[in-house]
Amino acid sequence: MNIVVINPNTTAAMTARIASTAKAVAQAATQIIAIQPGKGPASIEGYADEAMAVPHMLEAMFAAQTNHPAIAGYVIACFDDTGLDAARCVLDAPVVGIGEAACHLASLVAARFSVITTLARSVSPIEHNLVKYGLASRCARVRSAEVAVLDLEDAASDAYAQISNEIRSALKDDRAEAIVLGCAGMTDLATRLSTEHHVPVIDGVGAAVKLVESLAALGLKTSKHTTYAKPLAKAYAGALPNFIS
Amino acid sequence: MNIVVINPNTTAAMTARIASTAKAVAQAATQIIAIQPGKGPASIEGYADEAMAVPHMLEAMFAAQTNHPAIAGYVIACFDDTGLDAARCVLDAPVVGIGEAACHLASLVAARFSVITTLARSVSPIEHNLVKYGLASRCARVRSAEVAVLDLEDAASDAYAQISNEIRSALKDDRAEAIVLGCAGMTDLATRLSTEHHVPVIDGVGAAVKLVESLAALGLKTSKHTTYAKPLAKAYAGALPNFIS
Amino acid sequence: MNIVVINPNTTAAMTARIASTAKAVAQAATQIIAIQPGKGPASIEGYADEAMAVPHMLEAMFAAQTNHPAIAGYVIACFDDTGLDAARCVLDAPVVGIGEAACHLASLVAARFSVITTLARSVSPIEHNLVKYGLASRCARVRSAEVAVLDLEDAASDAYAQISNEIRSALKDDRAEAIVLGCAGMTDLATRLSTEHHVPVIDGVGAAVKLVESLAALGLKTSKHTTYAKPLAKAYAGALPNFIS
Amino acid sequence: MNIVVINPNTTAAMTARIASTAKAVAQAATQIIAIQPGKGPASIEGYADEAMAVPHMLEAMFAAQTNHPAIAGYVIACFDDTGLDAARCVLDAPVVGIGEAACHLASLVAARFSVITTLARSVSPIEHNLVKYGLASRCARVRSAEVAVLDLEDAASDAYAQISNEIRSALKDDRAEAIVLGCAGMTDLATRLSTEHHVPVIDGVGAAVKLVESLAALGLKTSKHTTYAKPLAKAYAGALPNFIS
Amino acid sequence: MNIVVINPNTTAAMTARIASTAKAVAQAATQIIAIQPGKGPASIEGYADEAMAVPHMLEAMFAAQTNHPAIAGYVIACFDDTGLDAARCVLDAPVVGIGEAACHLASLVAARFSVITTLARSVSPIEHNLVKYGLASRCARVRSAEVAVLDLEDAASDAYAQISNEIRSALKDDRAEAIVLGCAGMTDLATRLSTEHHVPVIDGVGAAVKLVESLAALGLKTSKHTTYAKPLAKAYAGALPNFIS
Amino acid sequence: MNIVVINPNTTAAMTARIASTAKAVAQAATQIIAIQPGKGPASIEGYADEAMAVPHMLEAMFAAQTNHPAIAGYVIACFDDTGLDAARCVLDAPVVGIGEAACHLASLVAARFSVITTLARSVSPIEHNLVKYGLASRCARVRSAEVAVLDLEDAASDAYAQISNEIRSALKDDRAEAIVLGCAGMTDLATRLSTEHHVPVIDGVGAAVKLVESLAALGLKTSKHTTYAKPLAKAYAGALPNFIS
Repeated sequence: MNIVVINPNTTAAMTARIASTAKAVAQAATQIIAIQPGKGPASIEGYADEAMAVPHMLEAMFAAQTNHPAIAGYVIACFDDTGLDAARCVLDAPVVGIGEAACHLASLVAARFSVITTLARSVSPIEHNLVKYGLASRCARVRSAEVAVLDLEDAASDAYAQISNEIRSALKDDRAEAIVLGCAGMTDLATRLSTEHHVPVIDGVGAAVKLVESLAALGLKTSKHTTYAKPLAKAYAGALPNFIS
Repeated sequence: MNIVVINPNTTAAMTARIASTAKAVAQAATQIIAIQPGKGPASIEGYADEAMAVPHMLEAMFAAQTNHPAIAGYVIACFDDTGLDAARCVLDAPVVGIGEAACHLASLVAARFSVITTLARSVSPIEHNLVKYGLASRCARVRSAEVAVLDLEDAASDAYAQISNEIRSALKDDRAEAIVLGCAGMTDLATRLSTEHHVPVIDGVGAAVKLVESLAALGLKTSKHTTYAKPLAKAYAGALPNFIS
Repeated sequence: MNIVVINPNTTAAMTARIASTAKAVAQAATQIIAIQPGKGPASIEGYADEAMAVPHMLEAMFAAQTNHPAIAGYVIACFDDTGLDAARCVLDAPVVGIGEAACHLASLVAARFSVITTLARSVSPIEHNLVKYGLASRCARVRSAEVAVLDLEDAASDAYAQISNEIRSALKDDRAEAIVLGCAGMTDLATRLSTEHHVPVIDGVGAAVKLVESLAALGLKTSKHTTYAKPLAKAYAGALPNFIS
Repeated sequence: MNIVVINPNTTAAMTARIASTAKAVAQAATQIIAIQPGKGPASIEGYADEAMAVPHMLEAMFAAQTNHPAIAGYVIACFDDTGLDAARCVLDAPVVGIGEAACHLASLVAARFSVITTLARSVSPIEHNLVKYGLASRCARVRSAEVAVLDLEDAASDAYAQISNEIRSALKDDRAEAIVLGCAGMTDLATRLSTEHHVPVIDGVGAAVKLVESLAALGLKTSKHTTYAKPLAKAYAGALPNFIS
Repeated sequence: MNIVVINPNTTAAMTARIASTAKAVAQAATQIIAIQPGKGPASIEGYADEAMAVPHMLEAMFAAQTNHPAIAGYVIACFDDTGLDAARCVLDAPVVGIGEAACHLASLVAARFSVITTLARSVSPIEHNLVKYGLASRCARVRSAEVAVLDLEDAASDAYAQISNEIRSALKDDRAEAIVLGCAGMTDLATRLSTEHHVPVIDGVGAAVKLVESLAALGLKTSKHTTYAKPLAKAYAGALPNFIS
Repeated sequence: MNIVVINPNTTAAMTARIASTAKAVAQAATQIIAIQPGKGPASIEGYADEAMAVPHMLEAMFAAQTNHPAIAGYVIACFDDTGLDAARCVLDAPVVGIGEAACHLASLVAARFSVITTLARSVSPIEHNLVKYGLASRCARVRSAEVAVLDLEDAASDAYAQISNEIRSALKDDRAEAIVLGCAGMTDLATRLSTEHHVPVIDGVGAAVKLVESLAALGLKTSKHTTYAKPLAKAYAGALPNFIS
């Protein structure tokens, strides 16, 4: 099956690392199509970057739907689950965000988990998603390691140490029993952090790929009954939709 | 004081009606600057239209900030509070959405209220906002009158009757004690509906204008501490921000 | 328009300071009528003072309704929103408590806020109100500065420093992004504290005056449908109502 | 042991019926001291009556504390739990409201219960209490039988039939598995209604008497740590407290 | 009246101490029948012990129902309220768990309470029960003193000191105003701890005995309407029910 | 990989149908080991059957762990997620219940879902699980089709029609956008029901198999930090654990 994994930001190196994780966990028969939008922010840090990234992301996802036969599903590889609801309206196949994916799986292996994200400004958007998903009661705390997203691309940064320190605090102070990594850019750190801290450390990219494979195997698609129905045909000034070219 | 009221869709007739309500309720000294984006959907019905509208809305709001001296605040005149969080990050002055405005004021005049929106596909986005605002427990139910947004522009449609019927049901079945009109396009119906049903009927456009005037008079601006801090400077492929631009 | 601002305690100096803030933020055309009950506690600290203050407060508000033509609305200037529900039943014009007013406005300018009140015994009543209003999820924490209400009247006390210290803790430990001052007696400290801490600091007296002006401008009154219906006529032993002469 | 049961309204016939239930369920060694305030409303229907009743109720409870040796505890026999928090501050022995008592016991014998109260205007105050007590999730629905409180004193009224009809609806439509009677005036109907509907029907007067006996037997008193600490000494204009007096 | 108090573990010394508390608080006319299962764990620490203990507990409770005339009710003397729902289905008379009993009574004497249990692994099961009961909002925190259940049987252990230390932290850090002892094995410590810390300290064994006496006096039994209906007759491989002989 | 799918009841025909679904959705490389306990109820309907089934289920799962090399994970094929927490403590590999599995996946394809279970007595246990999982806010309603579990084994029963009728009601009255089948015995009906009603219909058996495959592929196991730590070694009267055995 074909799974489109979209990095909603425009940093190719991050797309590559995301693709690498996705391919590593996918079944042999799964084809990972890793894409990124042609336009938009180099990283998504807070609500404004998120808002600007979405239309370009939808455009790229729609193009993938047009260009590739039989797409089994889509992964949105930003922990804020950027544009997830809109993508579910637009596309035929199921769409899974890495934020929701990681938190759903975390709740299958631990009574409580903490999320470690990058910057403090991302904490509220993530908390808000958890409330919306219904999983807020399973999350002990959303912590920020105060690491910029693109610092995760820099092997020389002390990003690993800062994330590891936050995990230590989460296990000690939050009563967390598992850790969710709160940024697609941390996708290659999960195994090392889990080995160090002796608890499950969940990366959303891998989680979302497996959930899309699962939905596809079960024949489950986004319900088009009401909330995620196809967008209604209408005039768009300056054009682009319908929907979405 | 100058207040920018933006209709995030591109239907000029709706912008005009919104402006009319805004001017009617504003203080004598308030200057209403009614704008709409140059591009985007003719109406916002569901998550996909919303996502596509936001960058154009932010661009138009930023242009207003640049072109007009001393803006006291902004009203986003779509009941979904489209792009509200991003606008708070981007702009200096306070920003109020008509959805939140109407629901906050409703909770000052009634123990419980129901919202009457246009289409069923808008119910989930509104419910989700209510949970996020913390006001879900004050809202008895979000109902849809099954009236398309642009039908509200058509005096010959039976939109009024359908909305009035839903209000009747809300008072009878939801234990609602006030009604919130769930679309900017209903802005001119509040008085007539209130007279007919003998309960407060709250229009968000008026509510938001008064709340922006209130915040401005009190010297209150969006907290730039963390969640709504200015977006970080970064590369934007295809350009536009920073911020915006 | 005439707005009655009632200090539910009997300390005239506090009524004067409340009146001063109210007049400072009111529109030019608004007439502030500042009153206090003829009987009752010198300050309201906890549930028992609150219960004793209410009938006298209702009596004074009703007298104001009788004596003044065309009252646009009422502000109850105690952060516990003492007697708010009863006042809504009794009076024709809208009634706003300074506790609810400050918290509603705070949620328009910040993702999370903390409340700083006077004594620990007031924390539970305030938390209880926040749950009732639906705003508990927006409030990071209700803190007490351990300053007695009447110490706020004493310029020589270290009340300012203690409140400022609590704000420092709230910003550091609660992830608060704005501060709500949890006592009418703090009404003149908001600007100084906001300047010192670089976040919005919201005083309820000003907030409530602006909200009453807003409701009045929009023609919104308390819904008399069910919960806040006029009290039923009935025998009162020892007399006083109906209602409330 | 001595237990004071106070009817917070001034209708002696209702006080007598409350006393009758209290004595019927009390242990042989328990002395029921049934009282009512000297002043205040003949019935409590909604927030305004409640507010007016409380100071007189506190005064009467304090007088009972002064006049009777060794009071083991107090029952407030109004389903709104009128003045419960204030009474806990003022008095030494434990205080239990019939509303909370009935709902706590109901949750020991049924997965879900519905409350049947008198008038629609009492629904919101009761719901608000349930949220505060933490028991809202156990309550399927608060229903009103549209019976005035004093009609319960009139054997010729059709109050029984109306309450019974509401119970029928609760069992059919709310998935209720037990019924809580939402007014002290219904205190003598529980057995007959339970026999008719084959589910537990809980009367708060009996429930509260047993809970006060239980607390007393266990040596448990109201915690005076913070929220229910004795009221602080202070000036009271027009006098009465301290406390009370 | 006869009340069966079952210790769901098989440690006779603990059963004896539980019986001792039960008898101390019971009315003169109440006969305490203290039992324990014939098989199962020596202590219940976490979900697995709990699951293994339940069928033996139900068997022992059913045998008591068969062997003793007129049982007024049952107390399950494990703070996890082990098998409470199943026991309610199986037995005719009311069943009360010591966990729920203590927390219901705590909420009658304090605005907030903390629970002090034995081991960290019991915190989640207790929290989960509190959410189910609806009382989670009344509980400030569930703390573990890191004392094994059977260490509570050893007078030479420092269990008392560790529990006392946790209470000190709860009063200082949780804003708790009362303490609930989170293990049947702590049943004889309540008075001493309350004297030391000057707040109510609630033991569940005593609380549950008084609640069963209360339900019995009021004629209240478990509702057999739906959730707690008698188990349906059916084949049991390897036999035992129906139900549960 | 080897996945153990346990039907916690002792009806072999149901185990066979569960195995059939599990094999149909599993990857080619997955070996499904379908088992059932040697003792216990023929069906699980309500809390009492559930409690009796668990020890036998744990024993059978432990035996499977002992007898089969390298088990990747376990599925508990009862919608009540019978014994799930205990199994997580006892076993090394991850354990997923079909109730949680179906509801997690439903929330990836629909804004709201309703559950259709067998009998009314199962509604409360399922609702209670949803609250515990954090997914209650995503579930519109838990409905019962009033079909006994073993009637699902009888092709001649009208079980299909009754379930289909409940789905019709759920779509019309609950605003559900997807349906979760609330019993393992309905495992073969999902496709037909989905085709008939044009919304996703999710069967938990398939969902759980895919989630276990997903966890295994990602190397995620139950966190043994605190709540799900291995049971402590201790005396068991009448023997069996440790653990198990």
